[in-house]
Amino acid sequence: MSDQGRVPPIKVALLGCGTVGGEVVRLLTEQADELAARVGAPIELAGIAVRRPDKHPELPQELLTADAAELIDSDIDVVVELIGGIEPVRSWLLSALQKGKSVVTANKALLAEYSGELAEAADASGADLYFEAAVAGAIPLLRPLRESMAGDRITRVMGIVNGTTNYILSAMDSTGAGYAETLDEASRLGYAEADPTADVDGYDAASKAAILASLAFHTRVTAADVYREGIGGVSASDIVAARVLGRTVKLLSICERVIDENGAESVSARVHPVMIPRSHQLAGVNGAFNAVYVEADAAGELMFYGQGAGGAPTASAVLGDLVAVARNRVVGGRGPRESAHAALPVSPMGRTLTRYHVSLDVADRAGVLAQVAQAFAAHDVSIAAVRQRDRHSTASLVIVTHLAPDAALRATVEEIGRLDVVREVVSVMRVEGED
Amino acid sequence: MSDQGRVPPIKVALLGCGTVGGEVVRLLTEQADELAARVGAPIELAGIAVRRPDKHPELPQELLTADAAELIDSDIDVVVELIGGIEPVRSWLLSALQKGKSVVTANKALLAEYSGELAEAADASGADLYFEAAVAGAIPLLRPLRESMAGDRITRVMGIVNGTTNYILSAMDSTGAGYAETLDEASRLGYAEADPTADVDGYDAASKAAILASLAFHTRVTAADVYREGIGGVSASDIVAARVLGRTVKLLSICERVIDENGAESVSARVHPVMIPRSHQLAGVNGAFNAVYVEADAAGELMFYGQGAGGAPTASAVLGDLVAVARNRVVGGRGPRESAHAALPVSPMGRTLTRYHVSLDVADRAGVLAQVAQAFAAHDVSIAAVRQRDRHSTASLVIVTHLAPDAALRATVEEIGRLDVVREVVSVMRVEGED
Repeated sequence: MSDQGRVPPIKVALLGCGTVGGEVVRLLTEQADELAARVGAPIELAGIAVRRPDKHPELPQELLTADAAELIDSDIDVVVELIGGIEPVRSWLLSALQKGKSVVTANKALLAEYSGELAEAADASGADLYFEAAVAGAIPLLRPLRESMAGDRITRVMGIVNGTTNYILSAMDSTGAGYAETLDEASRLGYAEADPTADVDGYDAASKAAILASLAFHTRVTAADVYREGIGGVSASDIVAARVLGRTVKLLSICERVIDENGAESVSARVHPVMIPRSHQLAGVNGAFNAVYVEADAAGELMFYGQGAGGAPTASAVLGDLVAVARNRVVGGRGPRESAHAALPVSPMGRTLTRYHVSLDVADRAGVLAQVAQAFAAHDVSIAAVRQRDRHSTASLVIVTHLAPDAALRATVEEIGRLDVVREVVSVMRVEGED
Repeated sequence: MSDQGRVPPIKVALLGCGTVGGEVVRLLTEQADELAARVGAPIELAGIAVRRPDKHPELPQELLTADAAELIDSDIDVVVELIGGIEPVRSWLLSALQKGKSVVTANKALLAEYSGELAEAADASGADLYFEAAVAGAIPLLRPLRESMAGDRITRVMGIVNGTTNYILSAMDSTGAGYAETLDEASRLGYAEADPTADVDGYDAASKAAILASLAFHTRVTAADVYREGIGGVSASDIVAARVLGRTVKLLSICERVIDENGAESVSARVHPVMIPRSHQLAGVNGAFNAVYVEADAAGELMFYGQGAGGAPTASAVLGDLVAVARNRVVGGRGPRESAHAALPVSPMGRTLTRYHVSLDVADRAGVLAQVAQAFAAHDVSIAAVRQRDRHSTASLVIVTHLAPDAALRATVEEIGRLDVVREVVSVMRVEGED
């Protein structure tokens, strides 16, 4: 460390300084010696762009500016972006990358839409684009996908990547309360945003699924390619139906490599509520924790678990990226580029193979199961398990299917809903994690 | 990919070709196009050094040689070492690194002893030294520690990193059989080596603990620094004692950052059997799976889970490293160097804070607990919980302590064993994972 005084510092511009940014500033200060030792040069915070500099008495005043574009244009090496959203951030980061400045960002919405454009700008100038904090907070997940598993063939990525919906579903499971009531409570306690749309409607999880699928399958997948269902449709009845069968409900992001009957490869990415067995490792992931399964040909099954959000955990991921890009500057290298060479087509949800759980209230008379089973057969859907129970004048019928194209399953459920013998379709949900 | 024909290939020498090596060769062949796309140049297997070339009809004969040193000296860029053991491998790898050839190795015993020397040789010539496969097989663990968490402060690494002992302990737990019998069965089924010493005596886990502690705490920790107890002393009584209290027994590798009362930092690394609650995530890790917890100041709690051994899983980790070092060659960079700048002292086991579980058969008369409690108090060890049960003329007494220096706990147990009222010390084991 003796000759570090002679190595010029790596100058960092911070865009946005909320909860995560504040933690980044704190760590940059407290860990300055550690970081310098790991990078091989001091890291210097050269400026912080915030909308209202006068609102940040806690930050070093001489570093504050309201002019992000000017800060990016100044003599800095790395931009750390923690503002979020598309514009004006997209233009700023493109401009930084075009000028050869490396970018570390936690902006999942931007990456899920424009990672291709940003990666091209980075490649053209030789700058780095790192974004570990964009998915699953503190969990080192993107680097393993981008680097550790680069010699393997990933077949599936499945996980819980949104803390708000996980909190709400966990609470519904433990209290038996309905969705609307639980969401209100979550908002009151600060577990849901004032406008919870991005979380509860699955947009956040879909952005993350797009990023994960892109990395796992070397294919550009955008948020628009991801099939998306939020948790607004999950009812107390669904939760009860799951519980009766030893299952629980989670909002999962699922990215799969699909091979059709002709051997043609495609990818599928989707976000929707899922029933999983209570014995499944993901069933025990509660509150703000995230967990992601990765399956690969050679590595087999892997699981990553940790805090998916929060100031300090997200800042940890940002700092890891910052050390990497700063080190690349010092030693004169570059991190892995975008890998989109496979360019696989995205398979539509209707053709994705899923399994359904269907709970029905049916007339309590002979021949009902035959009629319902006939509807499944008509759509070429094979039934894995049936459970019948009498309940006064109606009976309950629970069916779990084998894998079938989602469109066929959906059409079957619609047809069943129209049968005279079916009084009510109590719960319909996809099932994962079972043989 | 169109201009890759013009990029010269990265030439790889493979040392050793057993189960893992065979999988590496297979993946290099099957995934050649993928790997070339990710590296930016073709990867060419230039030679395979094995002890007896005539014993490998399954490999391309023109690549085989018995002369590893000559192969390393030839026109190759990267050495992949899968032989294991110290010499002659250490000399070969030093020679390769000194000549600027990058090294990918799975050799935990070598790294646990000589990683400093190897890293210095790599630094001197600018070559890369990667070893993801040396710990926890397919699980991307070292890269996250080395890179993703480089901006954070790791405080603890704890996990199951040896599949053989985990298999034996799982089997003892489920069958109630003793250690010797279960080991025999494991050997018969191929879960234990013919000479199981390295596994059952904890040497393998200690090597891995040394590697993990070195990376986590930026300090050179060798296998000799790691306190080590194998599973040979785990009895059927221990397993029963654990079960009665809702616990199970696992062999854990535990690396901790220790801060003493004067604020002085040190590191502690140890391998020994531990009782953990059955509800703990590590309790559910069975068979050949490994799982490692990492705790850091900013990231909080992380967990990594996956297959810890086996040909294909280990090959996956080797290939990930190979892609990284090959890419570094193509783009002209280097991976992270050894980070040993913290150079913390290693704390001896006696001063490491642990908690003990002690099961005793005691005389069934008044005042026994008072005598036993007095022995704990005399060593300044605080008791967390006591359970007494009558059993004819003897009674059982189970004590769980609070954290105390291991030496004090050990001395307490010795003293208790000498008390007249204590008929037998049935089980003594450290406890982790409880508040």
